[in-house]
Amino acid sequence: MDQKQLSAKIALDTFTGQVSRAGKVIDALTDEQLAGEISPGRNTGTYLLGHLTAVHDAMLPLLGIGHRAHPDLDEPFLKNPDKTDLPKPGITALRTAWKEVNDILTSKLSALTPDQWYERHTAVSEEDFAKEPHRNRLNVVIGRAGHLAYHLGQLALLKS
Amino acid sequence: MDQKQLSAKIALDTFTGQVSRAGKVIDALTDEQLAGEISPGRNTGTYLLGHLTAVHDAMLPLLGIGHRAHPDLDEPFLKNPDKTDLPKPGITALRTAWKEVNDILTSKLSALTPDQWYERHTAVSEEDFAKEPHRNRLNVVIGRAGHLAYHLGQLALLKS
Repeated sequence: MDQKQLSAKIALDTFTGQVSRAGKVIDALTDEQLAGEISPGRNTGTYLLGHLTAVHDAMLPLLGIGHRAHPDLDEPFLKNPDKTDLPKPGITALRTAWKEVNDILTSKLSALTPDQWYERHTAVSEEDFAKEPHRNRLNVVIGRAGHLAYHLGQLALLKS
Repeated sequence: MDQKQLSAKIALDTFTGQVSRAGKVIDALTDEQLAGEISPGRNTGTYLLGHLTAVHDAMLPLLGIGHRAHPDLDEPFLKNPDKTDLPKPGITALRTAWKEVNDILTSKLSALTPDQWYERHTAVSEEDFAKEPHRNRLNVVIGRAGHLAYHLGQLALLKS
């Protein structure tokens, strides 16, 4: 395995490792626990689950590896804060969407060749990429793993 | 910049980016806020600051780039849970240690050559590294950035 392959493996393992940890925490929470606030007056676990699902769903077009499965999550969970009256899916549907989106993502990411990890993502122009070649898929995936870790530290507070 | 250099840059930027974000959150908290619990009955911000400082301090020998500056933090912040009667530094000393440890780390990591990022860390034997060549410095640094993100999501809850 050369250094290029190693980096791609580390990025994929970092991301899928956090998804797997998050899955265990989320699955261990009852619907009632998940609907609770991570700390008094703060976001609910349900909001964070919707938020994370929307962000991961948006990785598919951002990385140029697929279309969005759940664009309907953006309005209630990405563009707006928690506790609005916006229509939103229930907890069971959110749990299913979370798994579905990450299954697609993991499958698509696992199929990338090492070189493809170093290609630009779709939010950066060819011109900018020539100047900033680190704005590649690898960078996005490691960044999203960090975003997930941030909210996972909060979801873990919902455990009794 | 070749792919090996790009990966090293992404790992370093990922780590220093999280340290910088954490620094802003911690600096914005008063001592009283930092001494509070992230959620009722959970860890205090002070404990998390000591914990993160101990973990980052231990990265120096783990990565083979330096000696520990604060091994005294392990007992109260790593080997034991929060709210013990163990002797521990005060908040001002912890704030200083956090900055000092990350300054040393950032300086040492910045001085690594791209090839050195792909060398084994000291917790893996030569034999195991031959079988698992992804157990390198790059992997450790990205992993610790994720660990920091996890607790940063919790520290952010201390803001008023």
